[in-house]
Amino acid sequence: MSVERHYEREFVRTFFTSPTAVDGEDDTAKMIRSAAQLRGMEAPDVWVPDNEDATAPNMRAEGVQNIVEVVAEHGTDFPGEIHPRVVWHRESPTTRYQGFQQMLEVADPDNGAVEHIDGFVIPEVGDIDDWKKADEFFTIIENEHGLEEGSLSMSVIVESGEAELALGDLRAEMGKPSNNLERLFLLVDGEVDYTKDMRAMTPTGELPPWAELRHNTSRGASAAGLIAVDGPYDDIRDVEGYHERMADNRAKGMTGIWSLTPGQVVEANTAPLPPETGRWLLDVGDREVELEEVNGQQVYDDDAVSLEQTADDEYDLHIGNEEHRLSEDDLREELLDRTAYVPSLNDIVDSMEEFEAAKEAGKGAIAMTRAATLVVDGVEVEVTKDRMWDEATYQAAQTPVTLFQDVYDHRPDQHEALEEMYGSDVVERATDVGN
Amino acid sequence: MSVERHYEREFVRTFFTSPTAVDGEDDTAKMIRSAAQLRGMEAPDVWVPDNEDATAPNMRAEGVQNIVEVVAEHGTDFPGEIHPRVVWHRESPTTRYQGFQQMLEVADPDNGAVEHIDGFVIPEVGDIDDWKKADEFFTIIENEHGLEEGSLSMSVIVESGEAELALGDLRAEMGKPSNNLERLFLLVDGEVDYTKDMRAMTPTGELPPWAELRHNTSRGASAAGLIAVDGPYDDIRDVEGYHERMADNRAKGMTGIWSLTPGQVVEANTAPLPPETGRWLLDVGDREVELEEVNGQQVYDDDAVSLEQTADDEYDLHIGNEEHRLSEDDLREELLDRTAYVPSLNDIVDSMEEFEAAKEAGKGAIAMTRAATLVVDGVEVEVTKDRMWDEATYQAAQTPVTLFQDVYDHRPDQHEALEEMYGSDVVERATDVGN
Amino acid sequence: MSVERHYEREFVRTFFTSPTAVDGEDDTAKMIRSAAQLRGMEAPDVWVPDNEDATAPNMRAEGVQNIVEVVAEHGTDFPGEIHPRVVWHRESPTTRYQGFQQMLEVADPDNGAVEHIDGFVIPEVGDIDDWKKADEFFTIIENEHGLEEGSLSMSVIVESGEAELALGDLRAEMGKPSNNLERLFLLVDGEVDYTKDMRAMTPTGELPPWAELRHNTSRGASAAGLIAVDGPYDDIRDVEGYHERMADNRAKGMTGIWSLTPGQVVEANTAPLPPETGRWLLDVGDREVELEEVNGQQVYDDDAVSLEQTADDEYDLHIGNEEHRLSEDDLREELLDRTAYVPSLNDIVDSMEEFEAAKEAGKGAIAMTRAATLVVDGVEVEVTKDRMWDEATYQAAQTPVTLFQDVYDHRPDQHEALEEMYGSDVVERATDVGN
Repeated sequence: MSVERHYEREFVRTFFTSPTAVDGEDDTAKMIRSAAQLRGMEAPDVWVPDNEDATAPNMRAEGVQNIVEVVAEHGTDFPGEIHPRVVWHRESPTTRYQGFQQMLEVADPDNGAVEHIDGFVIPEVGDIDDWKKADEFFTIIENEHGLEEGSLSMSVIVESGEAELALGDLRAEMGKPSNNLERLFLLVDGEVDYTKDMRAMTPTGELPPWAELRHNTSRGASAAGLIAVDGPYDDIRDVEGYHERMADNRAKGMTGIWSLTPGQVVEANTAPLPPETGRWLLDVGDREVELEEVNGQQVYDDDAVSLEQTADDEYDLHIGNEEHRLSEDDLREELLDRTAYVPSLNDIVDSMEEFEAAKEAGKGAIAMTRAATLVVDGVEVEVTKDRMWDEATYQAAQTPVTLFQDVYDHRPDQHEALEEMYGSDVVERATDVGN
Repeated sequence: MSVERHYEREFVRTFFTSPTAVDGEDDTAKMIRSAAQLRGMEAPDVWVPDNEDATAPNMRAEGVQNIVEVVAEHGTDFPGEIHPRVVWHRESPTTRYQGFQQMLEVADPDNGAVEHIDGFVIPEVGDIDDWKKADEFFTIIENEHGLEEGSLSMSVIVESGEAELALGDLRAEMGKPSNNLERLFLLVDGEVDYTKDMRAMTPTGELPPWAELRHNTSRGASAAGLIAVDGPYDDIRDVEGYHERMADNRAKGMTGIWSLTPGQVVEANTAPLPPETGRWLLDVGDREVELEEVNGQQVYDDDAVSLEQTADDEYDLHIGNEEHRLSEDDLREELLDRTAYVPSLNDIVDSMEEFEAAKEAGKGAIAMTRAATLVVDGVEVEVTKDRMWDEATYQAAQTPVTLFQDVYDHRPDQHEALEEMYGSDVVERATDVGN
Repeated sequence: MSVERHYEREFVRTFFTSPTAVDGEDDTAKMIRSAAQLRGMEAPDVWVPDNEDATAPNMRAEGVQNIVEVVAEHGTDFPGEIHPRVVWHRESPTTRYQGFQQMLEVADPDNGAVEHIDGFVIPEVGDIDDWKKADEFFTIIENEHGLEEGSLSMSVIVESGEAELALGDLRAEMGKPSNNLERLFLLVDGEVDYTKDMRAMTPTGELPPWAELRHNTSRGASAAGLIAVDGPYDDIRDVEGYHERMADNRAKGMTGIWSLTPGQVVEANTAPLPPETGRWLLDVGDREVELEEVNGQQVYDDDAVSLEQTADDEYDLHIGNEEHRLSEDDLREELLDRTAYVPSLNDIVDSMEEFEAAKEAGKGAIAMTRAATLVVDGVEVEVTKDRMWDEATYQAAQTPVTLFQDVYDHRPDQHEALEEMYGSDVVERATDVGN
């Protein structure tokens, strides 16, 4: 009952690019040779030997040979999918023809790599007719090399206004008999070149947030049964910023993100998975802060909030520069409004199982309850959150579990890390629930 | 001079769903029987006996009979429109055929309900071709039952990426001779299922804001002469949050919202109407607070702002963690920048009448002035806001008045509440102005 | 390698409207006569004698004569382009025919103005077929008056949902042999009427931000090789608000904005150009503040941040209501995360030249370093920001320089102001770099 997907992975968390040939090294293939040997949480869901922007133009011929050599050698054992990026430009037939030649060479069965190649990444696409030109080259290559038509998947980098507009055409165009666009796999945003194409400017030179682009990419993926991936996060040092970006992306339905280093791969492989332990958040006015669990109580211990009992049924609550004089009931109400709970994987599985049992017993909706003792400045307040679960809530809650199961099915090399993180009992229940 | 609308109501504030059949009750129709008897501010503009998600699958056959029975009995007296929701899914022909059968039964003139049925709500639509399938069933039902072609209106729930994309096709598709899509009425967002369809995730499980979806729904409604309605607000307890959402929606041109309880209906019927009394707002840095009127002065009395006269023409103004040393003129300027006025219905009518008189007298633009005495920490400051009104300002200001008039024309059962709220003099002038 | 643009200016900073005929003045053409004589930073890139909303309906016949007279007299010397706005409405054939007649008259070579007229502005357009109706009138006018087909450019005001949707069709429609839509030039948002058309409401009557509209306009411009311009900013007094809006627009790729006064023209001509001197920003929680350069150090001197050394390698940092106890290294890290640098034109040119030299020497990427001494409460902290520049960074950084060069090429009347602002050495290097 969902849009049909033509590929194996339902989710892609990580899109990791490596330069195919680096000048000045003894082994110009050093970077992709090392990337090909990544395993576990350091290995991406999709690995992209990058024969475009990451590799200097004069090294790209050698890059093609390096891809062939490294993928032929390491492809069998690499745990993720392999999708080299070749050159392409919507406004340059020269570049497009080079991209065709690069793919033709990499996909040549005589070179021994193509059996491990899942597809190619096409950057700088334009409107839908430009996507069709690339698709046609895939078809010709498959035909020339005796590969099954449609067996090589095609991912694109959306980095122009035209390409963003094309996202709205995919669903209608993919079914047409004159193309093989069903081979489409990832829709990846490329914000650096998109910013240039849109001629956008910011005072500090940092990239604009491009919220609408990401929405449109995610929606295009949803409507056409594809997977949306966000572009590179340049400031490799800024792990917190990378996490904020990923959280924002997930709220848009964009689960995957580009990674530039194995460190970023680890973060991006982990971030979309539910946390090991649940936690309470308190809204302190301009942000939400995580409460600290101390002896089973949820303790707030910082300056933004202060709380004092001033009379029998009277409390003074300061939050930021707001002041509230409240009865005990109103205080409870106020804190209830300001708290939220982030469920762990275990919590989600519990709730799903509970709802499944209720459904079995003929109930369509049940209340899920979660209680905590909040402590602010020594004052204890009990709060209880109720949430009605019906079929729709159940199905929406299922997304992170479906992601978990997709990871578990396709990444045996990450089983150990998952069991270390969650415990094998939770992992087992999470792989079973909802099926 | 605006896009032609094919239905009676120009605005719909409230879309209230009720389960059609609840198991375990003596009277399974209890919920819709009671909803059908709502009047005044508790009665919605559009009432939706919900034979889809609100009703358990095994109760839906009975739900159809309940709709027929309750609407036949109470339809004449119900003050709003009646649009039952039936089942539908873009990816299930079984479900679509069930939806057809449900509508065929409800609309059967022998059952006595159809004369009070204004239309049906179709959930889970896909791309525009899917909307056409539903429209075709309406046409067949009208033909079978001897109803006028196009007399049953069709509203849809937008809860998939495909349906969001279809919003851009409506205007071009509605005129085509091979469909009767002119019957379209409401475009309703359904964020729970949309979130699932987009595979979006948030840490706490709360719904993402989906700003772009709401914009696109509102724009689609504007371009095709339809009415945009936001989806359900789950946290029934959170009245403030419901109001914030509605205010955000109205700024997007989405006047209507789903209501889950008669309490939410009252809030949502009232919120889009201009307030009874005007009020001044002061920007205190991270938010706007409402000033309190005391003896005709606008008083700020909280911790976020402090003001002190420190010398003859010198003032210290603290706002949040900013500090300003200002002359009297600069102080007035600063406070003027930070204040805004929310006009009452009476204020709006006054301004419109004043502009109409000026236009009559041959003037194209006039300045509207509003003055107040602000009091902060005992310091009094006079501010005067000028705003130029021309034809465009006049027409934009007219939207809330047009809404008021639409309500007044179609909801005689709310006249009493309106007169209680505004006074009969203001109500009378508000129904006259601009016509 | 970019979408082909069919007009001379690559960027338009300013779109300045003037009423064509004002009743009650000795000279009804007074406003446009004075506007036609603006020079330098007060003169807009595009000047729009406005025979629509700015001019009373009963003055528009005279307005046409005034345009002809003033443009014939002053057109040769006016430093910007001249694009009169005529009347038009997607839903009124009367208005459309009036618009045609106004253009036919202004463009009549016997009247002596058309050689200085670059095009016309068409307001209130609807869907793409409506744009074609206007385009057809341009073609007929060119044919009747013996002007080259396509020589008059057409700009539109996007102020309806339909027109916003049409922005997605431009690229596909512009190439069709049955129209001359290649004459399109500016896509201008008109938020007042758009708000009315969308039936949006805000409590205070101020305009909604319409972020999605601006994105879609900018994207439409990018995809079709056109220029995006934001609508009028009503609060003429609020210079800071105007600057914030322009900064937000530039981050969306919308460089131009409407100006209502010569004062706004100066601001809007200047704002998109890089600053004369670089500056450091510090994130103090809820906003960014500019640091003050004192003896080569970057000093923060306000209440939102306090910093104290409490032990040998221990610092207390308070930011807003957050408190951090940090080692010297962590303090440096924290401040580094919170600072950003806004480069001057000179800085940008330096970096571009440095990258060009590196590229010449065979390097594909180099690190650009920027260091500063921050001073908070007397405590000095050295921070160093590194940024990798590759070809894509270089090209994205080039946007403000390309804008500068476009201004320099087309506005000799602003050379003096530019040299005063930047110094002639920087101006010379900025006009050379990247070519």
